[in-house]
Amino acid sequence: MKIINNIKEWKKIRGNLSDDLKIGFVPTMGCLHQGHASLIKNSVSQNDITVLSIFVNPTQFNDLSDYQHYPKTLDDDMELARQLNVDYVITPDIDSMYPDGNQIHLVTDHPLSSVMEGYYRPKHFNGVLTIVMKLLILIHANKIYFGEKDYQQYFLVSELIKKYFVKTEIILCPTVRELSGLPFSSRNTKLSINEKQLIETFYDFFYNHRPHSLNLIKEKLLKLKIQYDYFETHDDRLFFALKIGSIRIIDNFKEAALYVN
Amino acid sequence: MKIINNIKEWKKIRGNLSDDLKIGFVPTMGCLHQGHASLIKNSVSQNDITVLSIFVNPTQFNDLSDYQHYPKTLDDDMELARQLNVDYVITPDIDSMYPDGNQIHLVTDHPLSSVMEGYYRPKHFNGVLTIVMKLLILIHANKIYFGEKDYQQYFLVSELIKKYFVKTEIILCPTVRELSGLPFSSRNTKLSINEKQLIETFYDFFYNHRPHSLNLIKEKLLKLKIQYDYFETHDDRLFFALKIGSIRIIDNFKEAALYVN
Repeated sequence: MKIINNIKEWKKIRGNLSDDLKIGFVPTMGCLHQGHASLIKNSVSQNDITVLSIFVNPTQFNDLSDYQHYPKTLDDDMELARQLNVDYVITPDIDSMYPDGNQIHLVTDHPLSSVMEGYYRPKHFNGVLTIVMKLLILIHANKIYFGEKDYQQYFLVSELIKKYFVKTEIILCPTVRELSGLPFSSRNTKLSINEKQLIETFYDFFYNHRPHSLNLIKEKLLKLKIQYDYFETHDDRLFFALKIGSIRIIDNFKEAALYVN
Repeated sequence: MKIINNIKEWKKIRGNLSDDLKIGFVPTMGCLHQGHASLIKNSVSQNDITVLSIFVNPTQFNDLSDYQHYPKTLDDDMELARQLNVDYVITPDIDSMYPDGNQIHLVTDHPLSSVMEGYYRPKHFNGVLTIVMKLLILIHANKIYFGEKDYQQYFLVSELIKKYFVKTEIILCPTVRELSGLPFSSRNTKLSINEKQLIETFYDFFYNHRPHSLNLIKEKLLKLKIQYDYFETHDDRLFFALKIGSIRIIDNFKEAALYVN
């Protein structure tokens, strides 16, 4: 496994890779968990070369403190990447990805970018699309892997790829969950033991005793002192964002009626 | 020469072109003149394949009437392209380039995008960068050709290419001028005989009797009843925009001191 923190070096390596090789790309912000591992495994099994990027993208954070305290576990990440047979890990610095700042950036007015995460995290998706576009062009992969947990992100990146004729195929991988149903997420590491238990109690209730009425779900959250930003259904998919302590947990389930009625 | 108005067909053709072939790309809005011809000649001489696009891009017009009345001379354009040995002419329709509108677009906050044309044509460069990005990815050329007349556009596209790691090299070709010094431009066809003469008188004065003081230049314009939006110097280059009738004429000259002092 080769670790590359210099964009020029990557360009040189990429230029020398044969066009016959299928390249899979997993973009991450590090603090890798079983969700990322699943994306990587899919890429390794479907391609000749797997490229993993680790870059905490400042432009997609609307909360400076969230950005500054985003969990970093680089040594563990490298160990996991190595175990999973990643070929290249790219860890660029901010100046490489945003020389002179973010003076040319993507903006989305898509209806699905102003609701849910787009509403509660203004300009978040502009930052996501901007960094993904840069990485799509830089890596020039055959396939790029996204997790179903961030379905809204997956959808908007799919739109980006379509509307800009990017040749990379986007692959959606199922959300990986703990036993309680809680999806793996880098931010989960910030939950206190007590918060984790409350969330697990909620997931156990939500996931294993479905379907519920939304009112029942909201009552349960109230009892557990878990707040929420939204519960919304789009395209027969139920999306929600929970808030506990300083942490937001986002999730979604297809076939909404299986969960709420 | 092959004329392609279907993006899918182009993608198929592009996918079958050998990677050993050098591809040159000349993006235009049609109504081709000697300036375009010079870009095409450069491309044909420097590449194995030359692709010309003709697409009047709605998102870069801030004036609907200017867009609706943009001159169209498709038959003549094809004839010229054929004479100059263009290999592929791509003439996509609006729905192909902007399906569902312009929901994901590029925005520039670069200091050089809010002055001059950026100031007088708000959001013009956002539209330029958006369509150029789509075309850069779609054509996937080795070189893309821009004219020095639109130097501000060239500069911002260069920034786009750098900041998004696009592998296409941007080539700047010198402005092609009529005998009077007036640069060739598609919009010149809209000048009345009288307006054309006034402009030529100005260019003769400006171009052949340099250097002048800016005051002298502005006096001359006043006498000729030609208005202007700006005369500005950036990076030792003098930029100006003249207005006569409904037409704007933009131009620029390096080594500003040769023209004004």
